[in-house]
Amino acid sequence: MQIHSFEPPRRILMGPGPSNVYPEVLEALARPTIGHLDPEFIRMMDETKTLLKSAFQTHNDVTMVVSGPGSAGMESCFVNLVEPGDRVVVCSNGVFGGRMKENVERCGGKAIVVEDEWGRAVDANKLDDALKAHPDAGVVAFVHAETSTGALSDVQTLVDIAHSHNCLTIVDTVTSLGGSPLSVDDWQIDAAYSGSQKCLSCTPGLSPVTFNDRAMEAIKNRRTPVQSWFLDMTLVTAYWGGGTRAYHHTAPINALYGLHEALRLLVNEGLENAWVRHRANHEMLRKALQEIGIDYYVPEGERIPQLNAVTLPKGADDASVRSSLLGDYNLEIGAGLGPLAGKIWRIGLMGYSCTEDNVAYCVDSLRTVLAESRGAR
Amino acid sequence: MQIHSFEPPRRILMGPGPSNVYPEVLEALARPTIGHLDPEFIRMMDETKTLLKSAFQTHNDVTMVVSGPGSAGMESCFVNLVEPGDRVVVCSNGVFGGRMKENVERCGGKAIVVEDEWGRAVDANKLDDALKAHPDAGVVAFVHAETSTGALSDVQTLVDIAHSHNCLTIVDTVTSLGGSPLSVDDWQIDAAYSGSQKCLSCTPGLSPVTFNDRAMEAIKNRRTPVQSWFLDMTLVTAYWGGGTRAYHHTAPINALYGLHEALRLLVNEGLENAWVRHRANHEMLRKALQEIGIDYYVPEGERIPQLNAVTLPKGADDASVRSSLLGDYNLEIGAGLGPLAGKIWRIGLMGYSCTEDNVAYCVDSLRTVLAESRGAR
Repeated sequence: MQIHSFEPPRRILMGPGPSNVYPEVLEALARPTIGHLDPEFIRMMDETKTLLKSAFQTHNDVTMVVSGPGSAGMESCFVNLVEPGDRVVVCSNGVFGGRMKENVERCGGKAIVVEDEWGRAVDANKLDDALKAHPDAGVVAFVHAETSTGALSDVQTLVDIAHSHNCLTIVDTVTSLGGSPLSVDDWQIDAAYSGSQKCLSCTPGLSPVTFNDRAMEAIKNRRTPVQSWFLDMTLVTAYWGGGTRAYHHTAPINALYGLHEALRLLVNEGLENAWVRHRANHEMLRKALQEIGIDYYVPEGERIPQLNAVTLPKGADDASVRSSLLGDYNLEIGAGLGPLAGKIWRIGLMGYSCTEDNVAYCVDSLRTVLAESRGAR
Repeated sequence: MQIHSFEPPRRILMGPGPSNVYPEVLEALARPTIGHLDPEFIRMMDETKTLLKSAFQTHNDVTMVVSGPGSAGMESCFVNLVEPGDRVVVCSNGVFGGRMKENVERCGGKAIVVEDEWGRAVDANKLDDALKAHPDAGVVAFVHAETSTGALSDVQTLVDIAHSHNCLTIVDTVTSLGGSPLSVDDWQIDAAYSGSQKCLSCTPGLSPVTFNDRAMEAIKNRRTPVQSWFLDMTLVTAYWGGGTRAYHHTAPINALYGLHEALRLLVNEGLENAWVRHRANHEMLRKALQEIGIDYYVPEGERIPQLNAVTLPKGADDASVRSSLLGDYNLEIGAGLGPLAGKIWRIGLMGYSCTEDNVAYCVDSLRTVLAESRGAR
């Protein structure tokens, strides 16, 4: 067996994530490992919390990083806030709404699913109707930016409706954090989770989360233990919170160096500036795609700027186009998932990948590959 | 708010983990991120599986990496192999046996705990008695190398006893993998998990796991869904296994570059050579500590070579000695946990940290700090 050191190719990552990682973040990842209880590491954790509060626009004390990918962050919200027998309304308009339903059921909860078409925002009226029909629901869960379809939902309206029915809210902000306007405090989101590998442009594997006092109060008043030891917020906060810093698990030290740096770059750029940049490059991409005859799958006004779901041009072969882009142009764009497989591409403009140069490169490459594939037939 | 890029101090890590990370691994961490479905990444995952099989000494198809720390690896074994109402015998001789009990109970199982003294190996006779008294038990779980106490247990004997009572076995190999003889196939371990940050000397945050056919058959025949979506082996193997490579979650790309490199270094050194190195440096440390009057807490024959639990010398102040070692010598050693807090130190000799130079540096630093603290009184 002769296995060589792995030298990855240099890709331009314009899929649904991971995005290209900032060079400063890659550099931070390679710094010497120190212990998870080292006072210097604890200081870095505190700084990370401060930066993360700024990114989430929150003062929540319980704002920290789950030591796993976004799926673990999602699960951390559900296992802590849902108990056996609980009714949870899940607004589902894509893969990740479906995953939320799975989470509710695996916690022993009963999911009341409000279905919306894939590629459309969550319909606030349907949520309101569902909550009227199910007055015993205690939690409402939905996705801000549906990575699987490119649809952006109106968080503030949905949270207001949930609260008017005395429900807590769990919001998936995996693809929105750092790319689209998001304010956990202003919008009164009770629990939110995100991912490191989208608009933060850190390496995948970490999930920033935030819980407000109402959510933490609900966790404190649980009737049953949290089914996951690893994701039990009461235990995790004993390590991430102030005070004793009780050992819970060994934190992913170097990955956290990277996230600290990525958050620092975001805060230095300015959140609002980052939102404007994502919007501007989205507009540039939209116009350029229009010129080569590629349309958006999601209606205007419901689009995620940093994740552009576009309809496959007539006659284009999904797999062979993406394979040419990757093989000949080192350019990754995303396929459709589930019912949208073979129907859409997902073009990401996230974080460090969100540049004018990348927009131009992507559209040029796509134009050439499509022309070649038409010529070949 | 002015937060600078984090520049960690350079520590010599001789605690219970993380160990110092190989420079080659740090370098690998900083390579450009690619997508989790990129054919090049899939190829690297396949190589990682091959290397991991060699490290675990197994041919198990389901040998892969959980995208979280050792605690998530532990949880992946319990949530998949334990169902509500199941009887599980847990041999507990330290913190991690206690955590196993927590896991069983949070899965709705009933834990039958076989207690052994902290600092002693698991008593095989007690396990046999417990299994005779509880013929309805279906799983036996125990820790190979108890990181909290420094005690090494006889896996082969314990597994044989469990199998003679028709139980599956879950074995914690977090601190043993790569440092102590371990053979998943020869010993017929059914499920094992480990950690990246001990004798593999990769950064923390990943948990290698392996499940044999018997374990996978048990998972296939479950009466209830696995309570964790993130850790559901049937779903995870659809991504890590052969065939379709169905998207499950976004893998921690760069961390896996690091683990690939760490496993490569281990296999290149040779497993047996690594075991010999850990044993030899342990002997050197033991003799040198003896000369400065420091004794082992764990009886001879039950010691983990790579994690040396030693009794605090009379009059030594635990916190101030460790703090001087860290502050003045950049040397981290571990404190005792639970009932052993203030009674023992845990001196790690794991992976890249396991060198003759480190043994000498540690003993010299300890000698000086102890002499200074005696002089100060």
